[in-house]
Amino acid sequence: MLCLARVLYKNKDYWAAVEGESLRLLKNSPYEEIRVSDKRIKLKRHKLLPPAEPTKIICVGLNYTDHAKELKMRKPRQPIIFLKPPGSLIADGEIINYPGGCRRVDYEAELALVVKKKGKNIPAAKAGEYILGFTCLNDVTARDLQKKDGQWTRAKSFDTFCPLGPWVVRGLSPGNLKITSFLNGKLKQNSSTSLFIFNIGYLINFISSVMTILPGDVISTGTPAGVGPMKRGDSVKVSIEGIGDLCNRIE
Amino acid sequence: MLCLARVLYKNKDYWAAVEGESLRLLKNSPYEEIRVSDKRIKLKRHKLLPPAEPTKIICVGLNYTDHAKELKMRKPRQPIIFLKPPGSLIADGEIINYPGGCRRVDYEAELALVVKKKGKNIPAAKAGEYILGFTCLNDVTARDLQKKDGQWTRAKSFDTFCPLGPWVVRGLSPGNLKITSFLNGKLKQNSSTSLFIFNIGYLINFISSVMTILPGDVISTGTPAGVGPMKRGDSVKVSIEGIGDLCNRIE
Repeated sequence: MLCLARVLYKNKDYWAAVEGESLRLLKNSPYEEIRVSDKRIKLKRHKLLPPAEPTKIICVGLNYTDHAKELKMRKPRQPIIFLKPPGSLIADGEIINYPGGCRRVDYEAELALVVKKKGKNIPAAKAGEYILGFTCLNDVTARDLQKKDGQWTRAKSFDTFCPLGPWVVRGLSPGNLKITSFLNGKLKQNSSTSLFIFNIGYLINFISSVMTILPGDVISTGTPAGVGPMKRGDSVKVSIEGIGDLCNRIE
Repeated sequence: MLCLARVLYKNKDYWAAVEGESLRLLKNSPYEEIRVSDKRIKLKRHKLLPPAEPTKIICVGLNYTDHAKELKMRKPRQPIIFLKPPGSLIADGEIINYPGGCRRVDYEAELALVVKKKGKNIPAAKAGEYILGFTCLNDVTARDLQKKDGQWTRAKSFDTFCPLGPWVVRGLSPGNLKITSFLNGKLKQNSSTSLFIFNIGYLINFISSVMTILPGDVISTGTPAGVGPMKRGDSVKVSIEGIGDLCNRIE
């Protein structure tokens, strides 16, 4: 399995392959054929960037049976989709800003995928060809505004409300991955992608029947049971089996 | 007043100033200082492009008193915002695709603005500095899916569901412009931006308190009374005083 990070090195952003404690810079972007360079830098010494440069971030509402049960809602017949703006992205280690005037801001641990190539009306069976790899996403949500507005966009679109990372993992099988979140080190969400209501193939088919997906676009797959509020000063971690940890503080 | 179009010329896209029946190509993008070149081409001979390259398209729900009255809804206290994906943009003269499986697809004539420079928490009184200019937008909506989903995103995100143009007009005062739409030549919407519930300054302040706006981003200001369905083969025109006509066919 190959882990692909984006990193700031000498004021330029690079894609890089993660090799233990090192990053090996790529010669190009990973949407094309991957070509590694000979340049290795220390992983810990450099700032990671969100591992995608999307034209859009497409998210899915209710998609875990345990979360549906928790909310006492019936399983939806079709996915409900919404968009987060690209400007809401932050990387592992960056700060989530608690907006003034919000009364409740929640974490939502999610498995996200980064799109590898352009596609429209993609058959579910061919979805894999369009996936660069998987990463962790925190669909930060101002819960009070979500309820007040009815439409979810404002509540989910604040700058910094889309932590993504730490990197993209190629070759991961997404059907049965443990997904957890921790608030100040305490386990909050603990589920498995085996509880998806709509699997990855279904989602890619559904979304691409509406809009053309493009290299770098992000598709997030919904959150399991156990969402809850964060306070200023809290630290939140999304952890997914086979990927790693996405850690952010909220201020 | 200066009209700025985007045009495909010799397989490259250019910004251009509209001068009667001609386009005078710009040397750069109009977000910076405008520098015209000596190259003039015929307006009618070249394909116009959507006059913006947004990272996001931010739209506002109910924003006209006549539309609120028509829907028998109270004036909202705050704007409801939603996003359309950049891939939904098409130019004047391009075809709106009627998605298979949709039962009702509506036109919605709107005044849109293109953002000139990056901003966050912009005071209403300074909003003008952040506006490159104004243009026409058709917020095409699959009305059946909008009702079914509750969330508006899918219904408004299909490829081709965001006609924009024909060009951006600088120096236009947006407070009292006649806004109309025509279906197959027949007047359907006929209103004025003087009926805005939230004016441009309020909207820019409200939106930029959530997300940083960037050069090229599009903000659309809602539709007046008189929305309705289109059939395959129909032609739809959005016409705004001081800007011009945005014409598209649906197939």
